[in-house]
Amino acid sequence: MLKPLGDRIIVTVDKQEEETVGGIVLASNAKEKPQTGTVVAIGTGRTTDDGKVIPVSVKEGQTVMFDKYAGSEVKYEGETYLVLHDKDLMAVVD
Amino acid sequence: MLKPLGDRIIVTVDKQEEETVGGIVLASNAKEKPQTGTVVAIGTGRTTDDGKVIPVSVKEGQTVMFDKYAGSEVKYEGETYLVLHDKDLMAVVD
Amino acid sequence: MLKPLGDRIIVTVDKQEEETVGGIVLASNAKEKPQTGTVVAIGTGRTTDDGKVIPVSVKEGQTVMFDKYAGSEVKYEGETYLVLHDKDLMAVVD
Amino acid sequence: MLKPLGDRIIVTVDKQEEETVGGIVLASNAKEKPQTGTVVAIGTGRTTDDGKVIPVSVKEGQTVMFDKYAGSEVKYEGETYLVLHDKDLMAVVD
Amino acid sequence: MLKPLGDRIIVTVDKQEEETVGGIVLASNAKEKPQTGTVVAIGTGRTTDDGKVIPVSVKEGQTVMFDKYAGSEVKYEGETYLVLHDKDLMAVVD
Amino acid sequence: MLKPLGDRIIVTVDKQEEETVGGIVLASNAKEKPQTGTVVAIGTGRTTDDGKVIPVSVKEGQTVMFDKYAGSEVKYEGETYLVLHDKDLMAVVD
Amino acid sequence: MLKPLGDRIIVTVDKQEEETVGGIVLASNAKEKPQTGTVVAIGTGRTTDDGKVIPVSVKEGQTVMFDKYAGSEVKYEGETYLVLHDKDLMAVVD
Repeated sequence: MLKPLGDRIIVTVDKQEEETVGGIVLASNAKEKPQTGTVVAIGTGRTTDDGKVIPVSVKEGQTVMFDKYAGSEVKYEGETYLVLHDKDLMAVVD
Repeated sequence: MLKPLGDRIIVTVDKQEEETVGGIVLASNAKEKPQTGTVVAIGTGRTTDDGKVIPVSVKEGQTVMFDKYAGSEVKYEGETYLVLHDKDLMAVVD
Repeated sequence: MLKPLGDRIIVTVDKQEEETVGGIVLASNAKEKPQTGTVVAIGTGRTTDDGKVIPVSVKEGQTVMFDKYAGSEVKYEGETYLVLHDKDLMAVVD
Repeated sequence: MLKPLGDRIIVTVDKQEEETVGGIVLASNAKEKPQTGTVVAIGTGRTTDDGKVIPVSVKEGQTVMFDKYAGSEVKYEGETYLVLHDKDLMAVVD
Repeated sequence: MLKPLGDRIIVTVDKQEEETVGGIVLASNAKEKPQTGTVVAIGTGRTTDDGKVIPVSVKEGQTVMFDKYAGSEVKYEGETYLVLHDKDLMAVVD
Repeated sequence: MLKPLGDRIIVTVDKQEEETVGGIVLASNAKEKPQTGTVVAIGTGRTTDDGKVIPVSVKEGQTVMFDKYAGSEVKYEGETYLVLHDKDLMAVVD
Repeated sequence: MLKPLGDRIIVTVDKQEEETVGGIVLASNAKEKPQTGTVVAIGTGRTTDDGKVIPVSVKEGQTVMFDKYAGSEVKYEGETYLVLHDKDLMAVVD
């Protein structure tokens, strides 16, 4: 099991459907779209200088939206995950 | 539904009328104009090191002015939104 | 009406008289001169990490001096304004 | 014995198995994989401006995941170690 | 009258005598000399996050020394002034 | 005597044995090795904004490990020393 | 008299003897040596956000060591001085 440290969040990234016109795959748009994923593990939060821990803003199981280039891809037991910092998450998809 | 995290604000961007002279579309001015939009969702605010939450400075439904290059464009259920940080908003249009 | 957010200040910029010699417009000097303007609207101020609001240092109606390249130009109902941060203002002209 | 200072952590890096197809070593993927290692020594933690010490977030013996380019390689008594800062650790592998 | 804002200080810059040898003006030295000037107006000081105001460290009428490239030149009613931040002042000349 | 100021530490750098094969000096490896040295003098520590002094984390006589390019070399009475900041020290060699 | 402001320190720089071999001046070494000087005046110290003043760490008359490129050279009444910030001083030579 992977347990993220600090304010890190581990997500499985949703597959993005490629836009097709009559079965032909279109080249990606110039403006990069953010991605969505499902939170599989969360860190305990960021520790401030007072020793206080600020919890992360999402929970396991939530669908979150984040910038395409945010985070680090990690592989663990054959699965691919993305490790993000809490501040990299833009929105929760409800 | 998209629920912005932290001090983020989601807006729908107002269409900018192109300046025309007798129906001819003029090239954009050198100095970029800021854009306006309508706030559709707000985050709970930025969490400080004391664990205090500073609310964002606008409400849903308000028209806001922001720099043309601020924020990240996101698509959700066929609609296009802009995700901005509270500090990127310049003014409320009343 | 435009209501600036945070520590922002909206001014109308004073026209700068061009220096002329016998009616001939002289090229601008190498060293850029700061500009002056009249404050038309002020934000409530900057919010600190304690949730305290530090008010801006000028009032509506005051003439202020600021660096030529500071701020963002905005257009609203046919008028052109400059949106500045409080810290960009150099002096009040009394 | 090496005793790391501040929020530093000393790990022995796990060997990464090269991906092979029928015994032929494949070139590494474009996207760099993070590495794992075993914690062999931890510092007492980071000292804040109040003189408070914030302990590191891992213990000796734990397996940790970190970015491939993080840390400084050191040699001591014939062994090679990696010295990392606590914030460079991404996750604990349980 | 010009009233500087925040921790700004307005000075009139002292003329620097050019070094001459037998009436011939020598080229300036490679190492730029700092300049001196007389304080004509001071701001109330810098406002901290607690709302506390830290007064500037000089008074009107004092002669101060500052780096040649510090500050912004402003013109007001035919006079040229230099607007400096308190931290740009190196020393008081007594 | 040299008395380091603030959080500075003065060390005498240990000589690094060059790797040789049959007496032939080998070119240094691509990856720079950190160096070790002996602490000969320590500063009183870093002074925080509260006027509190945070002592340095090592004592005179200890062997410390630091990055090869850290610190400033100084000469004093024929001897060569390295002046480092406390945060530049990676580990104590016990 | 020059009275340094804030955490500034004014020193007279010690002359560095050039290394000579049989009267021939040798080119300076690649690695720049720090310089020493005598403290002639000290500022009252740095003012923190609480309005507290943190005194400088040296006294008038002390010999100090500093990096060759630190500080600003100033001329006053025919004499050349160096104005340094307290943090630029590396050590006191006792």
